[in-house]
Amino acid sequence: MMMEIRSRFKTYQVDFVDSLQSIQQLAAQKETYFVVDRIIYDLYRDVLSILPEQRLFLLEALEEYKTIDTALLICEQLTAMPSKRNTHLVSIGGGIVQDVTGFVATSIYRGIPWTFYPTTLLAACDSCIGGKSSLNYKKFKNLLGTFYPPDVINIYFPFFKTLSNRDYASGLGEVVKFNVIAGQNRFNAIEKDIDLVLAHDYAVLNKYVETSLYFKKTFIEEDEFDQGIRVLLNFAHTFGHAYEVSSHYAIPHGLAVAMGMITANNISVQRGFLTADYAERIERVCNKLLQFIDMDDKWFALDVILNAIHKDKKQIGNSITAVLIKREQTLEVFHNIQETEVELAIKHLLEKRV
Amino acid sequence: MMMEIRSRFKTYQVDFVDSLQSIQQLAAQKETYFVVDRIIYDLYRDVLSILPEQRLFLLEALEEYKTIDTALLICEQLTAMPSKRNTHLVSIGGGIVQDVTGFVATSIYRGIPWTFYPTTLLAACDSCIGGKSSLNYKKFKNLLGTFYPPDVINIYFPFFKTLSNRDYASGLGEVVKFNVIAGQNRFNAIEKDIDLVLAHDYAVLNKYVETSLYFKKTFIEEDEFDQGIRVLLNFAHTFGHAYEVSSHYAIPHGLAVAMGMITANNISVQRGFLTADYAERIERVCNKLLQFIDMDDKWFALDVILNAIHKDKKQIGNSITAVLIKREQTLEVFHNIQETEVELAIKHLLEKRV
Repeated sequence: MMMEIRSRFKTYQVDFVDSLQSIQQLAAQKETYFVVDRIIYDLYRDVLSILPEQRLFLLEALEEYKTIDTALLICEQLTAMPSKRNTHLVSIGGGIVQDVTGFVATSIYRGIPWTFYPTTLLAACDSCIGGKSSLNYKKFKNLLGTFYPPDVINIYFPFFKTLSNRDYASGLGEVVKFNVIAGQNRFNAIEKDIDLVLAHDYAVLNKYVETSLYFKKTFIEEDEFDQGIRVLLNFAHTFGHAYEVSSHYAIPHGLAVAMGMITANNISVQRGFLTADYAERIERVCNKLLQFIDMDDKWFALDVILNAIHKDKKQIGNSITAVLIKREQTLEVFHNIQETEVELAIKHLLEKRV
Repeated sequence: MMMEIRSRFKTYQVDFVDSLQSIQQLAAQKETYFVVDRIIYDLYRDVLSILPEQRLFLLEALEEYKTIDTALLICEQLTAMPSKRNTHLVSIGGGIVQDVTGFVATSIYRGIPWTFYPTTLLAACDSCIGGKSSLNYKKFKNLLGTFYPPDVINIYFPFFKTLSNRDYASGLGEVVKFNVIAGQNRFNAIEKDIDLVLAHDYAVLNKYVETSLYFKKTFIEEDEFDQGIRVLLNFAHTFGHAYEVSSHYAIPHGLAVAMGMITANNISVQRGFLTADYAERIERVCNKLLQFIDMDDKWFALDVILNAIHKDKKQIGNSITAVLIKREQTLEVFHNIQETEVELAIKHLLEKRV
């Protein structure tokens, strides 16, 4: 499978590859510099040990290193490369590696070529396209960031075998989200296949990663800089982000999105936008993913959640803004979400595990 | 005069304004945050003292503050703005203020609106459009940078009255460069008008700033990310940058470009691309600008210059790359400039002051 994404910066490509041979080929080129998730490096040492030490940066993929300081440290290492602006950055890892290297690739010498191998399902099915990066600065989470996509994205499914159940389920959170917002037919399909996908059936998963990326592609090609229609991809994220924050990132992103979907859909049911039956079917699929996390009640204290929502950079003014499903397959941005609606929805999320 | 520039990010606009009233209007809007060159602030206190202290950052426009640290400090101040992603950055100053605030505007929250008032002729006639920023990091000059243009650029000519002769002449260096590369007719015009322009005749200067920006516009609209034809605007810069570095930035950018033009044209004469007579006419105009700087011989030591050229991020491999004029109005990139040619050209620059 090969997909091309039209960006304002360039047309870039996503490939599903069935070996890591291309990494060896890249390593043989003198102008490549590698940033690799340390855990991935240890797991795939048989392939990755060929990477020359002086062109390799091993990154601890922890939230505390997703910082401008890490990005600047890599920039400093890159100054030793004689190829300067022709230096080709190759990064191998999940979302944190992508955030850090995306910022580096756009900021050094006003942009250098960049190839990315997403090693988490979350990065592969969603964040690898669209070009967003986010970095922390001091105590400010995700304060910094830019739009800058890789030139080439190579997706290698066997990487997902070494993910924990929790991280694998987290990736599926975004896959389910794409299939929910793509409408009833698409939701029917993932509802039927979710057990196969959870059991690492990659023939089936392949189809869902591909359709997730194709679905996202139409939004980012129309609205690369997130000033219009792309906001709809933020479905479930107003609440999801708040749960990530309230749990101090103990809830991984895709599982927070699954919780956010249950929350948003409950508000849709309260408003009569969605039947309780359809919302319950979606909830049942989400809960198959949420089995991999123990939900701690203290993560869901209303005041903490509301405070986190209001601090989100996408919230404008005093009301709460969120994307809701209206009539099974239409998404709409609402700026008038009430705190009482959120309160009921959180109660529902915690009590009614279907 | 109003000009629109099509960018990949947005269409943005350049206005020649005849008052600073718009600054007062912007100050009245709660979501605006101002970054102002401290010297400009002191000179225009009668207008600028209305800027509210909690939404104002005064920047010492020195090379040592053109750093990622300054940019991050401003980002940190911006976190206090309740308007978050809708915060509107307004910057007033020259190239250093533009570099710092351009990086801030693109990096915080993945981009915020930005209005720029260039206060130097150099920024007004050249750098304000095209979206380039450059920042220093530790000992690495201009290592970091991005492409991100302002949304609105307001050019107010009276700012140029308070420039030193040297800084004013520096701006004219780029004006002369644009008119040289635009061909013989355009060069004939600036050759005729240079004394008026040097005497601050703004009716005449207006025309040249406007045509310089129009000339640049065609290049940046075709090649925003500097991967093709935009390289031709780099005429005179291979040598100009080296002189800036070798003088530890004692030579201001536009005057370094004037010196770079004399150097590049001498190589063109050596190669038979340009008549000695035409090169001498250009040199005479450049030297009218260079009267405002004492040229210290030690800035022009061949080994220092060659070393600086090789370290430039735009140099690729071991040969020297430079744009030269070939037959009066055609520009071409040459990758085979010889050190002996550079040596002769520097000798010419120092000895033959016409």
